[in-house]
Amino acid sequence: MARMKKADRQRFLLEYIQETPFLTDEELSKRLHVSIQTIRLDRLELGVPELRERIKKMAEDAQLKVKSISNRDVVGELIDLELGKSGISLMTVTEDMVFEKTKVARGYHVFSQANSLALAVIDAPAAVTGVANIKYKIPIEVGEKLIAKAEIVKQRGNKYFVWVKIKNACQEVFRAKFIMVSLD
Amino acid sequence: MARMKKADRQRFLLEYIQETPFLTDEELSKRLHVSIQTIRLDRLELGVPELRERIKKMAEDAQLKVKSISNRDVVGELIDLELGKSGISLMTVTEDMVFEKTKVARGYHVFSQANSLALAVIDAPAAVTGVANIKYKIPIEVGEKLIAKAEIVKQRGNKYFVWVKIKNACQEVFRAKFIMVSLD
Repeated sequence: MARMKKADRQRFLLEYIQETPFLTDEELSKRLHVSIQTIRLDRLELGVPELRERIKKMAEDAQLKVKSISNRDVVGELIDLELGKSGISLMTVTEDMVFEKTKVARGYHVFSQANSLALAVIDAPAAVTGVANIKYKIPIEVGEKLIAKAEIVKQRGNKYFVWVKIKNACQEVFRAKFIMVSLD
Repeated sequence: MARMKKADRQRFLLEYIQETPFLTDEELSKRLHVSIQTIRLDRLELGVPELRERIKKMAEDAQLKVKSISNRDVVGELIDLELGKSGISLMTVTEDMVFEKTKVARGYHVFSQANSLALAVIDAPAAVTGVANIKYKIPIEVGEKLIAKAEIVKQRGNKYFVWVKIKNACQEVFRAKFIMVSLD
């Protein structure tokens, strides 16, 4: 495969990061067919911080926006939030979240991540859960990093229809449809 | 209202406790139109332990029966269990379970109680959650005592259809239908 010009590569790099802010340098190097070293130099030149810093910055921005619940009530780390529209949170499955017997994550930890994110996206001073239809697609194990995405798909009066999908590194592991109710 | 004969009263007392083991002496005294003192004496004569002891005994029996998950993985206190059929658990809503802003219980605590009870009733070496359809009926506040009842309504192969209803002192606050899947 012919090597891209530097300017093109850096343009793609910026686009990729814009679209998927959680790409590691390694993943970027694979996509762009260059070494990790090159990616690091590109980031330096472009003034793009490393992944950890990018997430930290996004999280700070997102956490300032939450209205319907307190920041501390979001389970996992909220890293993106468009209030009234959508949100993203990250949660790593730790040893204390799994069943003693089966070593799979207890269902309610994943539910907590989804449920609190569904609340966080609501643009109202306070909100509670009304209804939830949820599906666990595969068992989740220790160490997995879960990315939850919530989206408000419909609003009727004080009712918000919120869909949440949670993926691990490979596939969707959980999805939920919530009806949340905002309070005055 | 005419006062009952002692023998009748003690027969009713035993029936009430059989049916609703969580009745306090005060509630029993109201039902039977006698003083709390009289209820205590009746219990002594009949050899019926006080509420706390009755619950402790039931809990010990119930906890020995759980198969699909570890005892410690049941959220709230499991106080009755007919493996493969039904179960009951108690949970008191504490300060650390409520949202900072609204002071209502976080949805996932109630979900955890229901979900872990739905697992506990399964008569299999291990089980996980597949699907859940849930409804929060009213906001729940600090100090409320929640009684969850789970019942297996259907089984098809390794799939268990479990209904869970949670009440506070006055009314139903939450209900859920789960499909749980047993593992080998």
